[in-house]
Amino acid sequence: MTEHTDTRTGWLAPDDIADARERLPIIYVNAIPVRINTYGEVTHVGLLLRAAPDGTISRAVVSGRILYGERVRDALLRNLEKDLGSVALPRLPLEPQPFTIAEYFPDPSVTGFHDPRQHAISLAFVVAVDGECAPAQDSLDLTWLTPEEVVSEGVRREMAGGQDRLVRLALGHVGQLP
Amino acid sequence: MTEHTDTRTGWLAPDDIADARERLPIIYVNAIPVRINTYGEVTHVGLLLRAAPDGTISRAVVSGRILYGERVRDALLRNLEKDLGSVALPRLPLEPQPFTIAEYFPDPSVTGFHDPRQHAISLAFVVAVDGECAPAQDSLDLTWLTPEEVVSEGVRREMAGGQDRLVRLALGHVGQLP
Amino acid sequence: MTEHTDTRTGWLAPDDIADARERLPIIYVNAIPVRINTYGEVTHVGLLLRAAPDGTISRAVVSGRILYGERVRDALLRNLEKDLGSVALPRLPLEPQPFTIAEYFPDPSVTGFHDPRQHAISLAFVVAVDGECAPAQDSLDLTWLTPEEVVSEGVRREMAGGQDRLVRLALGHVGQLP
Amino acid sequence: MTEHTDTRTGWLAPDDIADARERLPIIYVNAIPVRINTYGEVTHVGLLLRAAPDGTISRAVVSGRILYGERVRDALLRNLEKDLGSVALPRLPLEPQPFTIAEYFPDPSVTGFHDPRQHAISLAFVVAVDGECAPAQDSLDLTWLTPEEVVSEGVRREMAGGQDRLVRLALGHVGQLP
Repeated sequence: MTEHTDTRTGWLAPDDIADARERLPIIYVNAIPVRINTYGEVTHVGLLLRAAPDGTISRAVVSGRILYGERVRDALLRNLEKDLGSVALPRLPLEPQPFTIAEYFPDPSVTGFHDPRQHAISLAFVVAVDGECAPAQDSLDLTWLTPEEVVSEGVRREMAGGQDRLVRLALGHVGQLP
Repeated sequence: MTEHTDTRTGWLAPDDIADARERLPIIYVNAIPVRINTYGEVTHVGLLLRAAPDGTISRAVVSGRILYGERVRDALLRNLEKDLGSVALPRLPLEPQPFTIAEYFPDPSVTGFHDPRQHAISLAFVVAVDGECAPAQDSLDLTWLTPEEVVSEGVRREMAGGQDRLVRLALGHVGQLP
Repeated sequence: MTEHTDTRTGWLAPDDIADARERLPIIYVNAIPVRINTYGEVTHVGLLLRAAPDGTISRAVVSGRILYGERVRDALLRNLEKDLGSVALPRLPLEPQPFTIAEYFPDPSVTGFHDPRQHAISLAFVVAVDGECAPAQDSLDLTWLTPEEVVSEGVRREMAGGQDRLVRLALGHVGQLP
Repeated sequence: MTEHTDTRTGWLAPDDIADARERLPIIYVNAIPVRINTYGEVTHVGLLLRAAPDGTISRAVVSGRILYGERVRDALLRNLEKDLGSVALPRLPLEPQPFTIAEYFPDPSVTGFHDPRQHAISLAFVVAVDGECAPAQDSLDLTWLTPEEVVSEGVRREMAGGQDRLVRLALGHVGQLP
């Protein structure tokens, strides 16, 4: 998982976070942005296009750390704004429980979710987005795909770290898995 | 549970529905209307004030049958409009699964949910409502109460059929049970 | 969906149930039997092999009506016993809410779940089964398949009425969708 | 929240964990042990009796950190064994999603969940326990209480950090909140 703006802090210097990553699981939120119709049914999933430091490009969901002292809901809103811009108008879920827990390990064989840098535990939510999305920071683009498109082989191959599976779990949760 | 507009039908004459009620469980939706803040947290619960045919008055949540050929989401929207008016702007949940199943029996000792007329199985949802609510039909009023108010002894006593407990289950689901 | 033993009743004569089916949604339970390991992870899904009246054979999950006066948990246990035998030792879920609601319509285009005879609303549960299963009644066999096998094209084609999708939703719910 | 056996590690020296606690949210599991009947209904909740370092005694649920490299399911099993002994035979939930997320802050006014030492984010699960429980380590006792008893004023006052509310949320999730 990538995180690009958590440097706003003073809370953890780069050395410290590197240190913690070797010794503690780091807690994240993942948000799958969706468009819905008036019946609350998911019609489209939003995927970010991202360039990794090594130059590879992949599609990804919204992702970021929960900071010290920050509530899960604050972390969700902050990371949605970071990745989708300030007028995306996300509708946070009413319930605090995520639809799944994605456990990312340096070893991809443990759970299928993979992060070479760290053991990350991510609370994953589906978030309906009503407004205009302007991918910010390191995101090159945001694409809205139908459930059929998002589970296609082509799109799956463009996702990394097991996030293609995370999106399928999200679609299952909302009853729209093809 | 009350249902007031299912007479729009021709689908079941009064005699037929009376007949079915003695032999089949009847399927309902219950909706707990809520106001939320920008973080998605429930700040208020909406309760209807209703007069029963016998003249007693009680507070209740939105309730109604699922009709033949009707999807759950359609039944939810129709019954929300019936009880809250046409500009309530309900936001249906993204997921098809209810937060609980309320099983109403003529015998109140079976589950605590009670309906003297029938065995009703109700799919219960929490629904955020953004717009103006104008209680319609047999509803005399709609009151917005905080979670603390809604679980108070006074309000509990004004609810019938176990719906006071249904509201507490709804508050638990969204993490706002006091 | 098939139902084979609801004739134990006297509660509804065949003519009456045929009549109700044209005018009311009929409420069902679906149970997806699974084997789990000591960590609670689903390792296998059990599918029944069934012969339909027209001679076609298909794979299916446990399925049956909720009867008048019967609690959902009683209906689950009764239908599990009907299809898996009396020593299957099913472990019912602790929570009353199903992982999804499958809405079967005579018209397969409405939700993808299809029942030519009726509008059925089914509460779907994943149920861990510890004991020996002896498929009873109209079931010819019970096969335990891994998550990978159960989502394969070959197995999907052997299922009817959208139940292949129901199984994928179940696997998503337990985090084991491949 | 207390944690008593995470000293098995070498993974974090006491100084290091103290350091991390000032700068990162620490991730925990909470498990509410329950007894169930053959229908899967919760009949009793198990509460531990614990002596805090300052000599105060309180009732608590199972609690402990998720360690680096450890899966959530492994952390659940390890902490259940730590608090309930090795023959408790816990049945982990099939689904990876917790019934709620309890966010403990040094400031009790933020969420109602309170931990003076740290910002802890806890994944909370209801876990059916079949075997004999022998409270281990710092736990003085384990008491099984009915849902009615566990929500009584007397028992609520014996719990700390908001765990009385956590237990009510758990009871709501399984439909047994009185």
